[in-house]
Amino acid sequence: MTNKIFMLMTFIGVPLSVIGSLMHWPTMILFIIYCLSIVALASYMGRATESLAIVAGPRIGGLLNATFGNAVELIISIFSLKAGLIGVVLASLTGSVIGNLLLVAGLSFFVGGLKFKRQLFNVHDARHNSGLLMFAIIVAFVIPEIFSMNMNETKTLSLSVGISIILIALYLAALFFKLVTHRGVYQTEESETAAENGHHEEPEWGKGKSILILLLSTLAVAYISENLVHTFHYVAEAFGWTELFIGVIIVAIVGNAAEHASAIVMAYKNKMDIAVEIAVGSTLQIAMFVAPVLVLLSLLFEKKMPLVFTLPELITMVTSVLLMVVISNDGESNWFEGLTLLAAYIIMGIGFYLL
Amino acid sequence: MTNKIFMLMTFIGVPLSVIGSLMHWPTMILFIIYCLSIVALASYMGRATESLAIVAGPRIGGLLNATFGNAVELIISIFSLKAGLIGVVLASLTGSVIGNLLLVAGLSFFVGGLKFKRQLFNVHDARHNSGLLMFAIIVAFVIPEIFSMNMNETKTLSLSVGISIILIALYLAALFFKLVTHRGVYQTEESETAAENGHHEEPEWGKGKSILILLLSTLAVAYISENLVHTFHYVAEAFGWTELFIGVIIVAIVGNAAEHASAIVMAYKNKMDIAVEIAVGSTLQIAMFVAPVLVLLSLLFEKKMPLVFTLPELITMVTSVLLMVVISNDGESNWFEGLTLLAAYIIMGIGFYLL
Amino acid sequence: MTNKIFMLMTFIGVPLSVIGSLMHWPTMILFIIYCLSIVALASYMGRATESLAIVAGPRIGGLLNATFGNAVELIISIFSLKAGLIGVVLASLTGSVIGNLLLVAGLSFFVGGLKFKRQLFNVHDARHNSGLLMFAIIVAFVIPEIFSMNMNETKTLSLSVGISIILIALYLAALFFKLVTHRGVYQTEESETAAENGHHEEPEWGKGKSILILLLSTLAVAYISENLVHTFHYVAEAFGWTELFIGVIIVAIVGNAAEHASAIVMAYKNKMDIAVEIAVGSTLQIAMFVAPVLVLLSLLFEKKMPLVFTLPELITMVTSVLLMVVISNDGESNWFEGLTLLAAYIIMGIGFYLL
Repeated sequence: MTNKIFMLMTFIGVPLSVIGSLMHWPTMILFIIYCLSIVALASYMGRATESLAIVAGPRIGGLLNATFGNAVELIISIFSLKAGLIGVVLASLTGSVIGNLLLVAGLSFFVGGLKFKRQLFNVHDARHNSGLLMFAIIVAFVIPEIFSMNMNETKTLSLSVGISIILIALYLAALFFKLVTHRGVYQTEESETAAENGHHEEPEWGKGKSILILLLSTLAVAYISENLVHTFHYVAEAFGWTELFIGVIIVAIVGNAAEHASAIVMAYKNKMDIAVEIAVGSTLQIAMFVAPVLVLLSLLFEKKMPLVFTLPELITMVTSVLLMVVISNDGESNWFEGLTLLAAYIIMGIGFYLL
Repeated sequence: MTNKIFMLMTFIGVPLSVIGSLMHWPTMILFIIYCLSIVALASYMGRATESLAIVAGPRIGGLLNATFGNAVELIISIFSLKAGLIGVVLASLTGSVIGNLLLVAGLSFFVGGLKFKRQLFNVHDARHNSGLLMFAIIVAFVIPEIFSMNMNETKTLSLSVGISIILIALYLAALFFKLVTHRGVYQTEESETAAENGHHEEPEWGKGKSILILLLSTLAVAYISENLVHTFHYVAEAFGWTELFIGVIIVAIVGNAAEHASAIVMAYKNKMDIAVEIAVGSTLQIAMFVAPVLVLLSLLFEKKMPLVFTLPELITMVTSVLLMVVISNDGESNWFEGLTLLAAYIIMGIGFYLL
Repeated sequence: MTNKIFMLMTFIGVPLSVIGSLMHWPTMILFIIYCLSIVALASYMGRATESLAIVAGPRIGGLLNATFGNAVELIISIFSLKAGLIGVVLASLTGSVIGNLLLVAGLSFFVGGLKFKRQLFNVHDARHNSGLLMFAIIVAFVIPEIFSMNMNETKTLSLSVGISIILIALYLAALFFKLVTHRGVYQTEESETAAENGHHEEPEWGKGKSILILLLSTLAVAYISENLVHTFHYVAEAFGWTELFIGVIIVAIVGNAAEHASAIVMAYKNKMDIAVEIAVGSTLQIAMFVAPVLVLLSLLFEKKMPLVFTLPELITMVTSVLLMVVISNDGESNWFEGLTLLAAYIIMGIGFYLL
C-alpha cells in the first residue's frame, strides 16, 4: 500500500519537479513538489539499500545500511554547503538528531504502546547506543562549542576537522564491534531467532535492479535537492518562518519521512528492537558519520563549516540525548514514554518557530 | 503527637496572625507567626486531602492529591504574583524543587538509613519519575532559558505559555497513565499488599468534615500568605538576606514543612516507596503543575511571568535532577546517599545565601 | 620488571635532577629529567603506601591509600600554589580528573577487552561511585562556576571554602561508609574471595622500610616538584604549548603514570574491580580531597585559589563524568567502551592543545 503511494508520488513528482523548475513555476508550489518527491524517492533508496544489504550478507549489508541510510540528508546538505547555506546544514543536522530521537522514537513508543501495555527491546543495545549518543553529542559536539569561544576561526576549524576524523573512526570501530568482534554477543534469544529468520529473508529486488534503482533515485534526489535548497529563502519569507525552523523541522522531516514510517510500523508489530534501531541508529549515523563527513567535504567549498552549532541547536540535542538515555535505560517502553518524547519535540518545535 | 503540636500552633497562630496584622506588630514577629501558622495549616490541608482521597477511592483520590498537594505554595505564589514579586515566585519554585529532591529525600534516605542498612523502593516508579524529572526540568525549564536569550519579551512569553500548556497536559497524561491504563502494572508484590491494605485504610475525618477543614484552612492560608509576602522585603533587609535566599530556602521550607515531616516518618518506618513518592512526586507536581499554572495565572495580572529562571536557579535544579536520577536509578538507598543529597543542598544553600 | 625500570630511573634520575638544577642545565633537559624521576618516585610512593596499608589492616589501610594515593599531585600543586601558578593547579586538577576517567579507564577497558570479550565489575560500587562523581563534579564544581558570575572575589572565595569543607567531610563520610558501616555489604561472591585472599596478602616491604621509603621519596618528589613548576613557562614557549595544555595533559600524565600502569595490568589480568577502583577512586580522591585541600591551603599563600575552573576545564570534566556514568552503569566493559573513552580524551587533548 504505502509502496504504491510512493510509486505514484515518484512517477508524478519527479517529472513535475523537472518541468516545474525549467518553467519557473511559483516557488511555493515547487517547494511542495520537491518535498513530496524526495519523500517518495527516499523510500526507494531505503528499499534498494535494504535489498542490497540482504544480498550482500549481514556484514557488508550492515556497512551499506550504515553508509547509505541517510544518503538523502547527505545529498541535500552537500547542495546546501555548495550554496554556502552553512546555517541550514547545521540546522538540518540538529533537526535529524532531535527528529529521530524524539519524533520517530516518540511516535514508535506511543503507537506501539497503544496496542501493547509494555514493550521490550534489547537493553544491551540500548546501553551501547546510550554510550555512543553521550560520546557524539555530549562530548564531540559540546567541546568545540565551548572551546571555540576562545579560539580564532582557523583553530576552530582545525579542532572541527580533528573531531570529525575521530567521530568517523569511532563510527567505523562501532560497526566493527557490532558486525565482527561482538556480533550476537549481546543478543537476546528472541532477537537471535529474528536474526536467523532474517537470514532467510528474501530481498525485494535483485542485485542489479537494486543498484540501478539506487543510482537513479540518488541522481533524482540530487537534482531535486539542488533546486530545493534555493527555495528555502523564499518559503521562509512567505510563511514568516526562520531559516532555522525550515532546517530543523521541515528539511529533517522531509529527509527522514520514509524511515519514520517504517519505525512506527515496526513498533506497531511489537518489533521494538528494529524500531529503536532505526530511531537511535539513524541519530548516531547523522552525528558520527553525516555531520563529520560534511565538515570534511566543506573544506572543498569556499565556505568551510566548523562543527559549531548555535546554542539553541546544541542545547536541544543535548537535552534530547539526556532524556532518551534516561528513558531507554531500562529496555522497556510504553505509550506514556512515547508521549513524553513527543512533548519534548513539540516544545523544541515551538522554540525554533518563535526564534 | 505531631498532630497535637500542629493543632496548638494553628489555634494560637491563626488568631495571632489576624490580630498582629491588624495591630501592625513588628514585622519580624509577624513574619515568624505567619511562617509557623502556615506550617501548621499545611498539615491540616494535607490531612484533609488525604482523608478525602481515601473516601473518594484511588483514582479521584490520586487526582485530589495531585492537585491540592502543593496548594500552600500555590496560594503563597499567587499572592506574590499579585504583588508583582515575580522573582520571589520563581525562587520559591526553585526552592521547592531542590528542597524536595535534596532536603526531603536526603533526610528520608539518611534517617531511614541510620536504622536500616539497605532500603529498597520500586525501581520502576523511580525510573518513571526520572523520565519525568528529565522532561520537566532538563527540557521544559532549560529550553526557554536558552531560547529567550535571542527573543524579545513577547516571544518569550508565548514560548512560556506554550510550554506551560504542554507541561500541564503531560502531567494529566501521567496521572491517566498511573491511575488508569497502567495502574498496578509495575507494582512489586510488597507494594501490592500495601495497596490492598491501603484500600481498607480508614480516613481520619469524614467527607463533610474534610471539605470543611480544607476550605477553612485554605482561607486561612490565603489570608496569612497575602500578609506574609509583604514582609519579605523587610526581613531580607533585617537579616542581610537576599530576596532570592528567602524565596529559595525560607518560603520553600515553610511551604513544605508538613510534607517533609511525613516523608521522614515513612522512611523511618522503612516505607521507602511512600517517602520517595512524597519527595519526587511533590517535585514533579511543582514543576509540571504549580509552575505552569502560575505562568498561565500571571497573564491575569499586570506583571506576566515567563518560565525563565535566573541561571543559578536553573543550574541548581538541573544538577539536583541529574544527581537524583543517578542516585535513585538502582531502587535502593542508604544513609550515605542521603548525606550526599543533603551535602548538595547545603552547597546550594550557601550559594544562595552569598549571592 | 616494571619495578626494576622504575628503580633504575630513580637512582639515575634523582641525582641527575639535583646536579642538573644546581648546575643550571638547559631547561628542556631538566624538564624531561624531572618528569621521568617523578614518574619513578611515584611508583615507590605507591608501593610503600600499599605495603603500609596491608600491614595496617583494611580500615587504616584504606585511609592511608585514600590520603597518600595522590600525594604526588598534591605536592606538585602545593609548589605551584606557592609560585602563584593558580591556573596550572586548576589545570592539573582537571587533567587528573579527565586523565583518570578517560585515559586510565579507557586504556584499562581497551587493553582488557582485547583479551576478554566481556569484563564484569561490581555494579554496586560503580553506582556508588557514579553518585559521588555526580556530586563532586556536577554539583560541587559547577555551582561555584555559575554563582561566581554574580559574586565579588571575597564571596567567591567564601563559597569555595564552604564547598571545600563539605567535599572533604563527605569524602571522609564515604570512607566511613565503605570501611565501617557498609564494609562488604555490596560485595559480590567473587570479590569476597578476593578480599579474603587479600587478607593473606604479603606486604612488599616491612613497616619501617615502607615508612622510610615513603618519607625519602616524598622529600625527593617535593624537591623536584619545586624545580619542575619553574620550567613550565619555558617549556610552554619552546613547544608552542599553552600553560593550560601543560597542566591538563603533561602534569596529569606525569603525576599519574604509575597508577595508569597498574590499572592497565589489573585489567589485563581481568581484575576489573581493581582497575575501575584505581581509575574512578583516584578521580574521586582528586575531586573530593586534593582539590578542596588545595583551596584551603591556598589561604596560607598570597594568592588564594577559588574553586572556579575555566569554562573549557569545567565542561571537559562534566562531560567526562556524564560519559563515564552512562558507560559504567551496567557493570560491564569491552574494548569498544574503552576506545570510546580514549576517543573522548583525544578530542579534549586536541582542544586544550589548540586553545
